[in-house]
Amino acid sequence: MEISQARCDAVLLAAEAKAAEIGVPMNIAILDSGANLKAFLRMDGALIGSIDIALKKAKTSAVFGMNTEAVGEYCKPGGSSPGLEQTNGGLVVFAGGIPLRDGQGTLIGAVGVSGGAVAQDFEVAQAAAAAQDAPQEGGLQWEVVAAGQPQPA
Amino acid sequence: MEISQARCDAVLLAAEAKAAEIGVPMNIAILDSGANLKAFLRMDGALIGSIDIALKKAKTSAVFGMNTEAVGEYCKPGGSSPGLEQTNGGLVVFAGGIPLRDGQGTLIGAVGVSGGAVAQDFEVAQAAAAAQDAPQEGGLQWEVVAAGQPQPA
Amino acid sequence: MEISQARCDAVLLAAEAKAAEIGVPMNIAILDSGANLKAFLRMDGALIGSIDIALKKAKTSAVFGMNTEAVGEYCKPGGSSPGLEQTNGGLVVFAGGIPLRDGQGTLIGAVGVSGGAVAQDFEVAQAAAAAQDAPQEGGLQWEVVAAGQPQPA
Amino acid sequence: MEISQARCDAVLLAAEAKAAEIGVPMNIAILDSGANLKAFLRMDGALIGSIDIALKKAKTSAVFGMNTEAVGEYCKPGGSSPGLEQTNGGLVVFAGGIPLRDGQGTLIGAVGVSGGAVAQDFEVAQAAAAAQDAPQEGGLQWEVVAAGQPQPA
Repeated sequence: MEISQARCDAVLLAAEAKAAEIGVPMNIAILDSGANLKAFLRMDGALIGSIDIALKKAKTSAVFGMNTEAVGEYCKPGGSSPGLEQTNGGLVVFAGGIPLRDGQGTLIGAVGVSGGAVAQDFEVAQAAAAAQDAPQEGGLQWEVVAAGQPQPA
Repeated sequence: MEISQARCDAVLLAAEAKAAEIGVPMNIAILDSGANLKAFLRMDGALIGSIDIALKKAKTSAVFGMNTEAVGEYCKPGGSSPGLEQTNGGLVVFAGGIPLRDGQGTLIGAVGVSGGAVAQDFEVAQAAAAAQDAPQEGGLQWEVVAAGQPQPA
Repeated sequence: MEISQARCDAVLLAAEAKAAEIGVPMNIAILDSGANLKAFLRMDGALIGSIDIALKKAKTSAVFGMNTEAVGEYCKPGGSSPGLEQTNGGLVVFAGGIPLRDGQGTLIGAVGVSGGAVAQDFEVAQAAAAAQDAPQEGGLQWEVVAAGQPQPA
Repeated sequence: MEISQARCDAVLLAAEAKAAEIGVPMNIAILDSGANLKAFLRMDGALIGSIDIALKKAKTSAVFGMNTEAVGEYCKPGGSSPGLEQTNGGLVVFAGGIPLRDGQGTLIGAVGVSGGAVAQDFEVAQAAAAAQDAPQEGGLQWEVVAAGQPQPA
């Protein structure tokens, strides 16, 4: 299943709101289940060095269907898969990337967050992932109202 | 000057509205004047092969401060700069990338659009660039209302 | 804010002077806040293997707005962000890269120094960063005098 | 033979002076005969898209020991070496790169200039290359005076 723009709007909104709440501007990336970029936002003041980290966190979670820190368990010292983080063009294996799933639990993509301390990135990513099932008319309705245009098919 | 998230909201909104009006889902990328990713949106149904094109169109316009098709004039057959499109990690030199400037005319970034015919990409990019100076409270207000959270600093 | 050539002249001068004082030829790189190359100098006798290190030190400091060794704290054994040094095309996370800020404290770029022992690189980088606010007419005046040409606009 | 910093100072000075004279801010890159970066300057206002072009022009001239446009003769339509510009990590084969040679005619490096029209880049590169044999005490003396430090060994 393809992750929808409406779902991405809800995820980005929740991520922004949590980032604003804790006062840390973040980079927020959303990839679909094919690990292809769907949406990205660099909040004002967020570090540009965290752009790539957010993208790679989302990629890491999308291609393995698990949280980035869970992937990290496989390649930490003594883990079963040393160097795993070097695959797939470079993974990011600390917290901040979380898979996104539909109502049936099917993997539909992942969100990656970077810009603060790892614990802050994780907190924002959790808020983002939790919002993926929020009513999504808000996003589309906003497009209609604010843009004054018919909504995308 | 750094391009603001509020300005990106206005640009993305206008791009989406125009894309919806012509019925062609688009990939829309916004980079700042340092060619660093600021915002990205792949509308539902947009081709994934156009993700990289939208990003490279925005990059091409940002690093040269001109429309992508204008850069193309330099490297077309008989142009002054054969192979120019091979520089900077690969440029895209057909229409769909347009620079973004502040009120003083200072380059602050660029928008790149891809997903339809080149003429359609250009039409959407023009609508996007034209909206960069639209009142931008709309975008942030929407965040406040829809998210019920303080607005990002 | 864009880092100016005059500021770069002052930074390079101070770096060269300190490198000369300690007798170690250095590679000195200056990037702007968008991590784009602004100025570079390889002093006579400096190791060519240190060219890339100086560039990556400047990049690491520019994209995170902190000293390279501070970035290293995040990815050292037991740190919060294992593998961080693999992001952004490869970071350098030992001393020798220092952010450059304007009078208001806004990040405007970074300087990276490599060619000696890490402690020597750091000493030269500190001298370079400390000189960024030195009167900058010196650099331009030298251009006028030595070149006998009008100064660049 | 290694290109000296003093020679680079003279080359950069002449390039800046000519660029100022014609009123076009330029990116100026100098590589040694091993195609390793020796000096670089992005004048204020120069396009960041021209950084890579200046570097690749210098590289193209350094590795083949000829002007960039001369290399272009080999890979132009109907030329003997189609695709040559794809080698060496990407060459730039239009004017603006010129080899630097010592008094005996030995190749010691190359200068690459980009930022204006090709004819302007070439004019600045010619002025730069012509200055390589200018008396070079100026550059080092300046270091002593302006920096108040012993000159590099």
